[in-house]
Amino acid sequence: MRILAGHPEFVVEVATAGQYAGTSIDALYPSLTGAYPGEFVSYETGMLDSCDIVFSCMPHGESMGVVADAAAAGIKVVDLSADFRLPADVYTEWYGIEHASPGLLEGAVYGICELKRSEISGATVVANPGCYPTASLLGLSPLAKAGMIAGTVIIDAKSGVSGAGRKLTLPTHFPQASDNIAPYAVGGHRHAPEISLYLDELAEGQVNMVFTPHLVPMDRGILSTMYVPLPPGAGADEVRSLFEQAYAGEAFVHLLEKGTYPQTKAVRGSNNCHLAVEVSTAGVAVVMSAIDNLVKGASGQAVQSANIMFGIDEGSGLAGCGLFP
Amino acid sequence: MRILAGHPEFVVEVATAGQYAGTSIDALYPSLTGAYPGEFVSYETGMLDSCDIVFSCMPHGESMGVVADAAAAGIKVVDLSADFRLPADVYTEWYGIEHASPGLLEGAVYGICELKRSEISGATVVANPGCYPTASLLGLSPLAKAGMIAGTVIIDAKSGVSGAGRKLTLPTHFPQASDNIAPYAVGGHRHAPEISLYLDELAEGQVNMVFTPHLVPMDRGILSTMYVPLPPGAGADEVRSLFEQAYAGEAFVHLLEKGTYPQTKAVRGSNNCHLAVEVSTAGVAVVMSAIDNLVKGASGQAVQSANIMFGIDEGSGLAGCGLFP
Amino acid sequence: MRILAGHPEFVVEVATAGQYAGTSIDALYPSLTGAYPGEFVSYETGMLDSCDIVFSCMPHGESMGVVADAAAAGIKVVDLSADFRLPADVYTEWYGIEHASPGLLEGAVYGICELKRSEISGATVVANPGCYPTASLLGLSPLAKAGMIAGTVIIDAKSGVSGAGRKLTLPTHFPQASDNIAPYAVGGHRHAPEISLYLDELAEGQVNMVFTPHLVPMDRGILSTMYVPLPPGAGADEVRSLFEQAYAGEAFVHLLEKGTYPQTKAVRGSNNCHLAVEVSTAGVAVVMSAIDNLVKGASGQAVQSANIMFGIDEGSGLAGCGLFP
Amino acid sequence: MRILAGHPEFVVEVATAGQYAGTSIDALYPSLTGAYPGEFVSYETGMLDSCDIVFSCMPHGESMGVVADAAAAGIKVVDLSADFRLPADVYTEWYGIEHASPGLLEGAVYGICELKRSEISGATVVANPGCYPTASLLGLSPLAKAGMIAGTVIIDAKSGVSGAGRKLTLPTHFPQASDNIAPYAVGGHRHAPEISLYLDELAEGQVNMVFTPHLVPMDRGILSTMYVPLPPGAGADEVRSLFEQAYAGEAFVHLLEKGTYPQTKAVRGSNNCHLAVEVSTAGVAVVMSAIDNLVKGASGQAVQSANIMFGIDEGSGLAGCGLFP
Repeated sequence: MRILAGHPEFVVEVATAGQYAGTSIDALYPSLTGAYPGEFVSYETGMLDSCDIVFSCMPHGESMGVVADAAAAGIKVVDLSADFRLPADVYTEWYGIEHASPGLLEGAVYGICELKRSEISGATVVANPGCYPTASLLGLSPLAKAGMIAGTVIIDAKSGVSGAGRKLTLPTHFPQASDNIAPYAVGGHRHAPEISLYLDELAEGQVNMVFTPHLVPMDRGILSTMYVPLPPGAGADEVRSLFEQAYAGEAFVHLLEKGTYPQTKAVRGSNNCHLAVEVSTAGVAVVMSAIDNLVKGASGQAVQSANIMFGIDEGSGLAGCGLFP
Repeated sequence: MRILAGHPEFVVEVATAGQYAGTSIDALYPSLTGAYPGEFVSYETGMLDSCDIVFSCMPHGESMGVVADAAAAGIKVVDLSADFRLPADVYTEWYGIEHASPGLLEGAVYGICELKRSEISGATVVANPGCYPTASLLGLSPLAKAGMIAGTVIIDAKSGVSGAGRKLTLPTHFPQASDNIAPYAVGGHRHAPEISLYLDELAEGQVNMVFTPHLVPMDRGILSTMYVPLPPGAGADEVRSLFEQAYAGEAFVHLLEKGTYPQTKAVRGSNNCHLAVEVSTAGVAVVMSAIDNLVKGASGQAVQSANIMFGIDEGSGLAGCGLFP
Repeated sequence: MRILAGHPEFVVEVATAGQYAGTSIDALYPSLTGAYPGEFVSYETGMLDSCDIVFSCMPHGESMGVVADAAAAGIKVVDLSADFRLPADVYTEWYGIEHASPGLLEGAVYGICELKRSEISGATVVANPGCYPTASLLGLSPLAKAGMIAGTVIIDAKSGVSGAGRKLTLPTHFPQASDNIAPYAVGGHRHAPEISLYLDELAEGQVNMVFTPHLVPMDRGILSTMYVPLPPGAGADEVRSLFEQAYAGEAFVHLLEKGTYPQTKAVRGSNNCHLAVEVSTAGVAVVMSAIDNLVKGASGQAVQSANIMFGIDEGSGLAGCGLFP
Repeated sequence: MRILAGHPEFVVEVATAGQYAGTSIDALYPSLTGAYPGEFVSYETGMLDSCDIVFSCMPHGESMGVVADAAAAGIKVVDLSADFRLPADVYTEWYGIEHASPGLLEGAVYGICELKRSEISGATVVANPGCYPTASLLGLSPLAKAGMIAGTVIIDAKSGVSGAGRKLTLPTHFPQASDNIAPYAVGGHRHAPEISLYLDELAEGQVNMVFTPHLVPMDRGILSTMYVPLPPGAGADEVRSLFEQAYAGEAFVHLLEKGTYPQTKAVRGSNNCHLAVEVSTAGVAVVMSAIDNLVKGASGQAVQSANIMFGIDEGSGLAGCGLFP
């Protein structure tokens, strides 16, 4: 809603909420004071029929119903849940739910904009990627596509606490999360199959991967540090030029100057992804990728996909620089 | 530069720096990657002559020379230093420097936009207020103008660490500043005379005041909690309605719903000021005011003044909501 | 339990928990790994009969039952809840509960150690003060006792988030609490009557007071900044010497060198209280007081009281310096 | 000095400082208020001759002179600088300084207590390990000694900002460091050769390694996440039992319960190291190790070594649990 308040084309018609239905928008998000009058309402089938697009931010399992409603009414959808990101069987394995709309699922496009632009432009349902997959796949794609992954990829990812959502838990309680860093879900995070699936697709083959997420005492931001064993003889210049070519002309993905590394604060609040790559003496590429998990890792990319779907300027509403310092 | 990158009318022609002249803009402010090519340059007299407006962010004492250069060339100026905020004698007392342009100083307008809009529109030199004075005066103005200050005003202000500028010191070193709160400059902060001067002007008489700033472990934001003894019989509704009237129709100053209090994160990155007021059983009004010290408390208000000076939409480039959470 | 692990005399016999009964001590408090084997157990009447002292950390309303059980079995108690801090009628007004043991309540001693040492030494039930009252009363006591409070006292207090306890709420959720400061419970915090009651007792008369608590993005620590109107003619030296005399020889309360101000990190993890006082030109004393809300503001002071109750060295188990930086 | 204030055997005779000589101990470290009277003094040769042990915390390059003075006077030394950690040629390569006491260097013992206990007990000069090497080597040692490292080891390490010392820099300035995470010194950190050297020694052969340090917005703590390719067939139970055996009976190194992972706050302020290990489906062991960089990663381990050198209880002065939350 923050992004849409500044969007030149889209206007928020309906804003729904679950437990916060009936709460004024200002009360729940005081930062929006003055931007939206009124209250959140409860979702009911049909209430979105006058809309051109739906951004569904429901929890996984619930979102698929809203998406089906919208699709049935001929409305385009960007779904921010996990419901349309994985094949039905993988989805069931990781989320413990049978998919209710396998047909819609098959037609859905995984909305990582820089890698799937043309599919998105024709899509009815776009599955907005998870925050870890966005940061990681943008960083790995140039190497994967060039066939430069010669062994097990290590993804050591660090996320701000907002990545865990608004659900109240002890690990996200301020006294426990502040002044602290911890790994979690070691070997079993739900974003792992999502990364794996699209990494294999990019590499056109199976890639072994170890993914370890960490909770960092900051509210926003993801930094993904990735270690990719290179084929013998691969040099730093060659590797760097793969990144230069991959993202030349992209408005939101920036390869930083040599010797400079991504930091999450440089992209805070923006739709940008900052990348760097070094090659170690051990023949391992160290790829670093930073995004704001709530913007390029969620709502910003969702709006970017919507812009593509409607054929308007892809950067509409997304032009702001990061809030630094 | 972050704000100007999204401004519909102003374009950055020259960006100067002191010790960082010769550094690329991206290297010093990685958040601006992609927005500005090139490097910071050293300031030289005359180099701004093709500009319509100068935002001078020089240290106090140095800024007055740049302002004088600009004024001599007929260029409008918003000065973000302290050089044009105080009468010459008070300035010398607090900053230990003789003022070099007392004539310019006399014509300068104190740029607290909501309170001095018409003076700003005709000004050549606008002195951009300090961050503490902005938060405090916006909160005290409705009571001061209504003659409702009946005793010593206590201003207990809390600032994020960026308020201390980029100068590297032990109290702003992360290991010392984090997980910590401390008062500083108790009884002797340079913003005290600035608040006092304009508070007396608003109240049309001398107001006693105690001002205590504190350093809070956050990067941006000021919260000013102010305690104002009211005249006998003054009630909560009367007080609240003074604030409603004062800021009705203002785009950037918002009186929050009853029972809701300002928090700095709700205005983070925005040009908004959030206000609340309660009346205690002891007959003291508790006024709370929150701004982003680097936006409404510095650059945002500077751009707002510039918009007023050029007669363009006052909110140009300043529309964004706060970055929350 | 952290403090008791290093105590030379006390040994933890029983550790109870509510929702976490059955959880291993290590799992809930990984910092205690290696210090305590076993699990938390559910409280049952009689299970503490072999103990010499009970530290009751139950929620208010529940704690009074445990305290009554212990008192009936002849066991000394330090109660960390609010149940024994206020007269029965005031308690009911603020906590909405009828007191079940008014007799015990009458005999309870308010355990602010430096001010009530002799009463504590003979007590059976000690009511451990709240964190805000501890910081505030230690700072106001020298002025109150000397009759130097000549008007409404303003208490502007800032607390780390752990002050709100382990209950999970949106304001204490990391993404909302970090990089933020906000006032709360303006005019209506439950610690206000507690401060008022003992402040009146110290001043031997009624003192008007305004108390505003704030939530600060740090885990531990309270800073209380207090503004006390002085009688005409009261000077800075006189005021300072009241503090010097009041706390000469105290192991845990330190008046800092002139020109130095308390910061919470300097007392982090310790049982110390750091104090400073300045007199403003407006005739207002600015008193600053910092403690660790979980140590001197809770468990540390509880152990200090217990040491006094058993006639052992008052500092047993409490000698550590603050964890800085 | 915080640790020594609570040490049963050692007493601080002399406390030296560089730029802060002449400053009172309280003023520089307000947390020590009440623990040490007096001021820091400038170091002069001979002034330590009455001491039994010297903890040298001088910058590298300067420390070797103090160590030589002490050794000449027959005083034991724990050197917290890098001066005695590496062979002379490697030292010169990474620190750009010729070593002035190569003889002393040859006799120095690398003081990672759990791995070098017997050598330390007979040493005159102990080189206290760096913080990253301590966390990393304690985590890798069980696998290295068992010959279980079958490929390039990835060390992705995350440090609190105090790891960078008291030197004031932009990356450690609060406004830049807070709410941010960034890698630094990618491929070229000075702790890399130190880790490599001792890892090779433990593994009795050359191990390829990639080390990437990151700056995390917390003051203290290091988390090292390490990825070790295992030999074919190595199972999770086998790997876990190597860790159990390696640290059974150790007071400060704790393998956490299965499914529980280290977090820096659980060891904050303590001399503990928390470890966990998982084996991924890709045949890679994920080892996680957390310490307080200023305690087990610096001063705590230094005192532990000194305890060993004097044959007193190894845990003297080091018993405290972590400060959590």
